Amino acid sequence: MKTEQPYLLTPGPITTTQSVKQAMLQDWGSWDADFRAMTARLCQRLVELIDGEGSHVCVPMQGSGTFAVEATLATLVPKEGKLLILMNGAYGQRMGKIMDYLGRDYVALDKGDYAPPRADEVEAMLAADPAITHVALVHCETSSGILNPVEEIAEVVARQGRRLIIDSMSAFGAVAISAKEVAFDALISSANKCFEGVPGFGFVLIRQSALEASKGNAHSLSMDLLDQWQYLAKTGQWRYTPPTHVVAAFLQALKEHAEEGGIAGRHARYQRNQQRLVAGMRQLGFETLLSDEWLSPIIITFFSPGHDSFDFQTFYDRMKARGFIIYPGKLTEAESFRLGCIGQLYDEQIDAVLEAVAAVLEEMGIPDGAPAHVLEAAASA
Amino acid sequence: MKTEQPYLLTPGPITTTQSVKQAMLQDWGSWDADFRAMTARLCQRLVELIDGEGSHVCVPMQGSGTFAVEATLATLVPKEGKLLILMNGAYGQRMGKIMDYLGRDYVALDKGDYAPPRADEVEAMLAADPAITHVALVHCETSSGILNPVEEIAEVVARQGRRLIIDSMSAFGAVAISAKEVAFDALISSANKCFEGVPGFGFVLIRQSALEASKGNAHSLSMDLLDQWQYLAKTGQWRYTPPTHVVAAFLQALKEHAEEGGIAGRHARYQRNQQRLVAGMRQLGFETLLSDEWLSPIIITFFSPGHDSFDFQTFYDRMKARGFIIYPGKLTEAESFRLGCIGQLYDEQIDAVLEAVAAVLEEMGIPDGAPAHVLEAAASA
Ligand SMILES: Cc1ncc(COP(=O)(O)O)c(C=O)c1O
Ligand SMILES: Cc1ncc(COP(=O)(O)O)c(C=O)c1O
Repeated sequence: MKTEQPYLLTPGPITTTQSVKQAMLQDWGSWDADFRAMTARLCQRLVELIDGEGSHVCVPMQGSGTFAVEATLATLVPKEGKLLILMNGAYGQRMGKIMDYLGRDYVALDKGDYAPPRADEVEAMLAADPAITHVALVHCETSSGILNPVEEIAEVVARQGRRLIIDSMSAFGAVAISAKEVAFDALISSANKCFEGVPGFGFVLIRQSALEASKGNAHSLSMDLLDQWQYLAKTGQWRYTPPTHVVAAFLQALKEHAEEGGIAGRHARYQRNQQRLVAGMRQLGFETLLSDEWLSPIIITFFSPGHDSFDFQTFYDRMKARGFIIYPGKLTEAESFRLGCIGQLYDEQIDAVLEAVAAVLEEMGIPDGAPAHVLEAAASA
Repeated sequence: MKTEQPYLLTPGPITTTQSVKQAMLQDWGSWDADFRAMTARLCQRLVELIDGEGSHVCVPMQGSGTFAVEATLATLVPKEGKLLILMNGAYGQRMGKIMDYLGRDYVALDKGDYAPPRADEVEAMLAADPAITHVALVHCETSSGILNPVEEIAEVVARQGRRLIIDSMSAFGAVAISAKEVAFDALISSANKCFEGVPGFGFVLIRQSALEASKGNAHSLSMDLLDQWQYLAKTGQWRYTPPTHVVAAFLQALKEHAEEGGIAGRHARYQRNQQRLVAGMRQLGFETLLSDEWLSPIIITFFSPGHDSFDFQTFYDRMKARGFIIYPGKLTEAESFRLGCIGQLYDEQIDAVLEAVAAVLEEMGIPDGAPAHVLEAAASA
């Protein structure tokens, strides 16, 4: 079972193909025409994937995904604007922190650890507060793994005449979204999640008219998406040194994404991973945080076993010794851990994960994965 | 002469070793202990290289070098502070732009395209304006290639009781600087220049006491160096997803840097490259922008040949066809181009560059590299 390089069951960085990594075995001049053509190809393909030709442009942004989120909020929400953040986990909360730094007005609909924001409550907030100019939604809130109902939210935001910003960091590439059907001003993602590239940059698919109207909004030279885009449009170059090797890896990743059938193909594999993983874990007694309706094909939160001898670090270390890097939970209320379905994972790996979990439980003297609330219910019955 | 991958005679990205690139052929979990240990090693080694143990800490920053510069200015120069920027090229000017975005007070000593700022003029400005709290200097101003006189500047800044911030993006790793001898609060650099890593992050070697006193200064969540450092100190992790593969490449690059004799060894090779290159180019009739006293071992600006049939794009394309990617000039006054001395360049490559330049001049029907002012002087004589 033990592999040389453990599989990453995490929500990015993920396990990439060898061919994606091999695309980094070359140096590029960032000023050179060859690299400029690579950047153009990357942007064009990403716009195609949201049916955004004619309405949206792609602005790549150096740094991690958070930089792209901050850049988008700062570039699109004007100083006199007001943002409604739909929060149900860490990444929605982080947008609040960003707005605190920006010193711009916002309000949150905070649903706690994992409940989804619904269209009716969003509509009520928008109707009650005409000062709200923008709404921000996390597509897949990676901290619980919930796939938030982007279509119904986009519909009310449009009906109320406001602008939608979607953090689709962990969903884009594996969850279809069309700018022709879902109205949004920005969709933010990064290289190292469902596209299966390596980390080093994010990108924003942004409505050109909204971007053009954003002059003077950005708080930061480095993160000014308008300036980045204008320079790119004029010269074909990134404004500042791009992560050339990471970009090369991403182009290879885009090629492999297309070969797998694009978003639909990628979605199908991740969905299959998720169903196989959830079914197998349930057989071992584990429970998912979310009901099936809200599970994403990206990452699943499981309650930790409630048995006394369970300890996350031991579980983690033993899973790693068997070749799998798992991910801690992020719930404020209950003990949990997460298993990702994204990256180079197929039936064979999912089955091996399940075998490893069963074996580690046995080593730890834990009869099954039943969480505390199940054990308590059984004890009091 | 033509190689599969052209050599980059540019100031970063540069030509890296195959072993540095091969270090990227693996995926790491950014949360995992293996990767945390890599980050710790990286930071420790960089602090050692400035003799900074006990006074300075290393804060890595995702994004390009400009992000690290902006993060440093925003974190260290308080909202009520005032910055003196010593400008003699594009990177000093960029600091002014950053301050414009931050809306914080600054003044510039602008020396134009390439004249060095001198201690006496800096001292006069500081003496005349007690509101100035910080001084920013570009170590090697890459736009001309000048190596600015950091020691004399640091001395007057300290004597005047102000704080120094050094943008050593293109110098650190090949130009020695000791925190024990030169007083600075921050030295900024990045992975892909004299350390010969690949691009994707910057880092700041920062006086711990100054960093600890910076609470509330940063304008940006992503670029708050204090927050980044506190999280790193507490967890061993980067706050947001690090460019894992780029970090792995950098660790290999640090190893090779040490094997070459650290900063002294790297400096010796670059210095040799520079001297060989300048001597050879002068033999072909070219002139350097700077007198020998101010030439850095990093990158050299040459005036373009003044002969009528010279055209930069043709020169560039023909040099590329022979395996060398050169760099355009950045002077406002005169036509120029730049040749870098950094990266995997040795005598063999420098000689090949010189042969290529000679051959391309011949193809273009240009007798020699004499610049316009030399031709004019000869004509009027
Ligand atoms: C939904 C979402 N938003 C934002 C981020 C932040 O991305 P990064 O860690 O690259 O800054 C993540 C990372 O997992 C995410 O899942
Ligand atoms: C002195 C100096 N400062 C800042 C930068 C900006 O770095 P980056 O292009 O990585 O943003 C450079 C890049 O060449 C530089 O040479």
